[in-house]
Amino acid sequence: MASKKDFLKETIKHIDIKKHNVVKLVDDMQNMAFSARDLNRAARIYDMMLNDKSCAIILTLAGSIFSAGLKKVVFDLVNNNMVDAIVSTGALMIDQDFFEALGFKHYIGTPRSDDNLLRELHIDRIYDTFIDEDELRVCDETCAKIFDGLEPKPYSSRELLQEFGKYLDKNGGPKVDDSVIYAAYKKNVPIFVPAFSDCSAGFGFIIHQTNHPDKHVSIDSAKDFLELTQIKLNAKETGIFMIGGGVPKNFTQDIVVAADILVEDASMHKYAVQITVADERDGALSGSTLKEASSWGKVSTTYEQMVYGEATVVLPLIAGYAYHKGSWKERKPHEFQKLFIEEKQTA
Amino acid sequence: MASKKDFLKETIKHIDIKKHNVVKLVDDMQNMAFSARDLNRAARIYDMMLNDKSCAIILTLAGSIFSAGLKKVVFDLVNNNMVDAIVSTGALMIDQDFFEALGFKHYIGTPRSDDNLLRELHIDRIYDTFIDEDELRVCDETCAKIFDGLEPKPYSSRELLQEFGKYLDKNGGPKVDDSVIYAAYKKNVPIFVPAFSDCSAGFGFIIHQTNHPDKHVSIDSAKDFLELTQIKLNAKETGIFMIGGGVPKNFTQDIVVAADILVEDASMHKYAVQITVADERDGALSGSTLKEASSWGKVSTTYEQMVYGEATVVLPLIAGYAYHKGSWKERKPHEFQKLFIEEKQTA
Amino acid sequence: MASKKDFLKETIKHIDIKKHNVVKLVDDMQNMAFSARDLNRAARIYDMMLNDKSCAIILTLAGSIFSAGLKKVVFDLVNNNMVDAIVSTGALMIDQDFFEALGFKHYIGTPRSDDNLLRELHIDRIYDTFIDEDELRVCDETCAKIFDGLEPKPYSSRELLQEFGKYLDKNGGPKVDDSVIYAAYKKNVPIFVPAFSDCSAGFGFIIHQTNHPDKHVSIDSAKDFLELTQIKLNAKETGIFMIGGGVPKNFTQDIVVAADILVEDASMHKYAVQITVADERDGALSGSTLKEASSWGKVSTTYEQMVYGEATVVLPLIAGYAYHKGSWKERKPHEFQKLFIEEKQTA
Amino acid sequence: MASKKDFLKETIKHIDIKKHNVVKLVDDMQNMAFSARDLNRAARIYDMMLNDKSCAIILTLAGSIFSAGLKKVVFDLVNNNMVDAIVSTGALMIDQDFFEALGFKHYIGTPRSDDNLLRELHIDRIYDTFIDEDELRVCDETCAKIFDGLEPKPYSSRELLQEFGKYLDKNGGPKVDDSVIYAAYKKNVPIFVPAFSDCSAGFGFIIHQTNHPDKHVSIDSAKDFLELTQIKLNAKETGIFMIGGGVPKNFTQDIVVAADILVEDASMHKYAVQITVADERDGALSGSTLKEASSWGKVSTTYEQMVYGEATVVLPLIAGYAYHKGSWKERKPHEFQKLFIEEKQTA
Repeated sequence: MASKKDFLKETIKHIDIKKHNVVKLVDDMQNMAFSARDLNRAARIYDMMLNDKSCAIILTLAGSIFSAGLKKVVFDLVNNNMVDAIVSTGALMIDQDFFEALGFKHYIGTPRSDDNLLRELHIDRIYDTFIDEDELRVCDETCAKIFDGLEPKPYSSRELLQEFGKYLDKNGGPKVDDSVIYAAYKKNVPIFVPAFSDCSAGFGFIIHQTNHPDKHVSIDSAKDFLELTQIKLNAKETGIFMIGGGVPKNFTQDIVVAADILVEDASMHKYAVQITVADERDGALSGSTLKEASSWGKVSTTYEQMVYGEATVVLPLIAGYAYHKGSWKERKPHEFQKLFIEEKQTA
Repeated sequence: MASKKDFLKETIKHIDIKKHNVVKLVDDMQNMAFSARDLNRAARIYDMMLNDKSCAIILTLAGSIFSAGLKKVVFDLVNNNMVDAIVSTGALMIDQDFFEALGFKHYIGTPRSDDNLLRELHIDRIYDTFIDEDELRVCDETCAKIFDGLEPKPYSSRELLQEFGKYLDKNGGPKVDDSVIYAAYKKNVPIFVPAFSDCSAGFGFIIHQTNHPDKHVSIDSAKDFLELTQIKLNAKETGIFMIGGGVPKNFTQDIVVAADILVEDASMHKYAVQITVADERDGALSGSTLKEASSWGKVSTTYEQMVYGEATVVLPLIAGYAYHKGSWKERKPHEFQKLFIEEKQTA
Repeated sequence: MASKKDFLKETIKHIDIKKHNVVKLVDDMQNMAFSARDLNRAARIYDMMLNDKSCAIILTLAGSIFSAGLKKVVFDLVNNNMVDAIVSTGALMIDQDFFEALGFKHYIGTPRSDDNLLRELHIDRIYDTFIDEDELRVCDETCAKIFDGLEPKPYSSRELLQEFGKYLDKNGGPKVDDSVIYAAYKKNVPIFVPAFSDCSAGFGFIIHQTNHPDKHVSIDSAKDFLELTQIKLNAKETGIFMIGGGVPKNFTQDIVVAADILVEDASMHKYAVQITVADERDGALSGSTLKEASSWGKVSTTYEQMVYGEATVVLPLIAGYAYHKGSWKERKPHEFQKLFIEEKQTA
Repeated sequence: MASKKDFLKETIKHIDIKKHNVVKLVDDMQNMAFSARDLNRAARIYDMMLNDKSCAIILTLAGSIFSAGLKKVVFDLVNNNMVDAIVSTGALMIDQDFFEALGFKHYIGTPRSDDNLLRELHIDRIYDTFIDEDELRVCDETCAKIFDGLEPKPYSSRELLQEFGKYLDKNGGPKVDDSVIYAAYKKNVPIFVPAFSDCSAGFGFIIHQTNHPDKHVSIDSAKDFLELTQIKLNAKETGIFMIGGGVPKNFTQDIVVAADILVEDASMHKYAVQITVADERDGALSGSTLKEASSWGKVSTTYEQMVYGEATVVLPLIAGYAYHKGSWKERKPHEFQKLFIEEKQTA
């Protein structure tokens, strides 16, 4: 009979944008049509954000892009001051980034699988990628252990993600050299996960709160919203670079309205780029156009661009373009994490 | 110059599945192909759930379907014991259902709008639908007021949604006769919103927590996860009816794994149906197949069906089929809300 | 080992719009949003075409919709004077309609098939539908036989399709009561297949022309274009009802430009409705909007509506709406086939 | 008032794959997931075709890809012996390639246009691209002039496309250095357009046949099918590289069945790659999987790959990969055009 080893053979390898100078390729898309022209404009708008000294850049992440080989791209953005805050799904940060930081891997699989057999073998499938479910359980338990070690009270996800970075630091560093959580921890780039129970950390919470029914760590996602809004208020201008839609997109667009509630005439996001395969026609948020967001007062329409395409192909081109243009070399890190640490220390 | 009144003229009207007996129409789709045959099978699986006395039904909701005229469909499912728990986005429950319960309306608009003009007029656009932004601000503030009135501590979204129902009850009831929050409150159907800060309630929290910086209400989404898992453990069998994907889909599929962590050999969701326009090929959760979920041990493959189609057309057919088949008439309400109230009272 | 019989068990059954009065259901979609509202408007525009005494209606067909159970819908449109000309793919008319007229069937299958096994068993698959390949070969040969019996010269596809109708008539009528080719033959509704070699008839031509290398029947698709343009010139107004895109859509939109070449100021198509799942963003014709067609002078923008959805679900609702509204009862058939027969007789 | 000049300013420029060595970039996609991994495999299969000395390569083209800046890519494939036959839509070959060979251009436009204004200004729109309609009329008339000069009888589209090449040759060559029709003419690469009346040439035919009602040139698309099948029979193995779907895809897959009718046990296409944005779920041909084609005996399943993505981004990567791998340098041209010329001369 087939064993787990038969399926978990070849590992996913993350693409390294630093190795591929795509500037000329993307430049030549400027005078084409359809997605190529859109991709070119999105890349140039991201480069504009990096050149605009007054602009803080918020990266939003959704979709299973780290298990698909795009983790190092985001790592490089963080590590080279190309992003100032991240808003993400929990699966990306915990089940995929933290998971690999613990030394586990993702494996090349196929969508034409016998899913019942995979289940019996404790193999989880994400389209054409396989995961060792037993390793994922170790990840869940590590989350629980981290929560067990914290003072029992409500936390923002940003605070908890920082604790994950601290955990890696104290335990000999991540087992990989491209951990996004760890790089963000070191570079003072805050990470927000507005639906933080919806991932491996949620299982960690199930264990933690069941073991500590009265006094335990809880996640205050309202605090997330307040903190991200404070970043918006602290920055003169903001640009958003969105990979996929979902809660991270909505949450990040909404902070303009939240800022507007706290102070009069908060500025809209000045720049906005989204990579998506979702469509606007079903009215769902993930595919809603940035022009639509403008009616809500969230995004300015001057520098916005949707790129319809799948991220594994599109993101290396846009991020690679911005990396090799080099505008980030002159850029000073915002280190927004300090905003909250100092605040706390003052208080 | 154009005024707000020029745009906010015709209101969205919710379709009433009780008026349209589509049983024969949907029956005749059984021997067709493509989406029609899928739709037929999904309708029959939902009817099987309603006939299975041991099965608790969890409805998950994403996408802007209430502003699109599908609110009364969900209201009728709740009111006729056709659903036992709801997992939803916050926008649907607060910005759309509670918003209408306060007496506000959604308006017929067009995707070909001048979004800059709309912004100036305080009109928000969802594809082809308009909203009065000033009314939405009233909704935000009402949320803040509700939070101001609660004991400052962490709550699950389920507890807070119940408070919204209670608020409507105390203030003369909803201003409409098809409020989902209110019907669920009356029928003891718990509503979970795992990313509760990501909606009008989030703005309410911004106001509430800013005004009460030290002691305030917070949302514990980990508690959400624990509570929904308790429902799973309490039910002998479960079926899930998913409209769209996103966090509600993932969260609800994940409780099988969570249950498995708490007790040995928790059962998978026995039935699963999803209406979606998302595709599986980008690996994102919203479009991931139910067969893929089976590899994770979340969903049994015997009775599962994806229906690729837009909910405004597909949901009235599936829900209408199940309503007019009448299997719900014999069904006893699970009233899972009592699970938590009794628990509390015992404790 | 598996045999063909194991796979070809349950036949596809065509839906009968006459049995399902969906007028109220579709009417109630008028004040919803997204695809439901679009579907409602498309249904009302089709009904307007039927009410407009000066309007000739051209139906364009693409996609494998007859094997999917939509053949009787088109039959009913032809039989009840709800369409005056058809522009179609060859697969629909020959491989599916004529094939069933010869007594063969389509079978319920599954997309999760072992396609190599199917090939060995001579079973052809269309997504979730099976076909007996040996029966399809009989269809090819019947085409060759029909061509063998004709005077060797170039024909328009319209002329050849009429010969297919005549063939059925002479051979005891079709073996089914819902043949579109036969109904069109009887009602003098011309059928055009601009890419007529791209189907079972193409295989018939391969046999016919190989057996008659010097003198043989050929297809003059330029003549098709001229004849359809003559219909356009003959009609005071035209409306187009398009199921899918492809060559039939482009061909039918183009006759406005062709008419404009022949006479000055030919009128645009006054009404236009399209059901499609294709998107406009890749610039391909199938998903190109009717507004875009307007820039080419092909379609007037006043009464046009795209409906994004899969035809097996959407067409029964739109066609059923128009059928049960009954506007066709007052409609006089245009019998455009006579245009060419009389012309010939005069000449 | 706006004039045509205000809209037709910047021209579309064709991307040059020779300038961008993407081999390492595409190689690094091999161990990723989703579309990147699919794209990598498709590129490697195309390279396998080029390395297989016994394999003839048929390129199929659909979608408005030449007006979008991909014309030079196809030119380079023809010019460097990377393709042995082309099956295309008429719009690509006549309205776009021949149109540019006459010295006309495509212009950068926007999908957010006032299409009624464009119509008044004689500007045609393809999503985000503009065309001067008056120039297109010149193209129509040039087609008519070419037909006027030919012996009145039925032609295959291949023969006519060759006449277009000859016309350019006699009139001082194309006005651009990247004409696909001209390169194919010079390299003896036959071009087939199975629905040849469905483009600017169709308007040419309208003029030609109206002016010469009795004796005129006609298109025999059955002859097209026979000729392409003869190519299949002449080649030991075949590989197909498909950009988009439509008639070109179906036609080219079908020649395997046609070959099987003419000789026993004709071989399937050994290699098959398709770039598409269409989905398989509506059962239409454009999105039907290559595995499905295998059930029909058209395509072998060993080396087949679908790539879901838009061609302007995906094709430069796949074609660029194959170009810079250089396997074509060892490749001998098949010059299938000679097959028909010699045949004629013998006869």
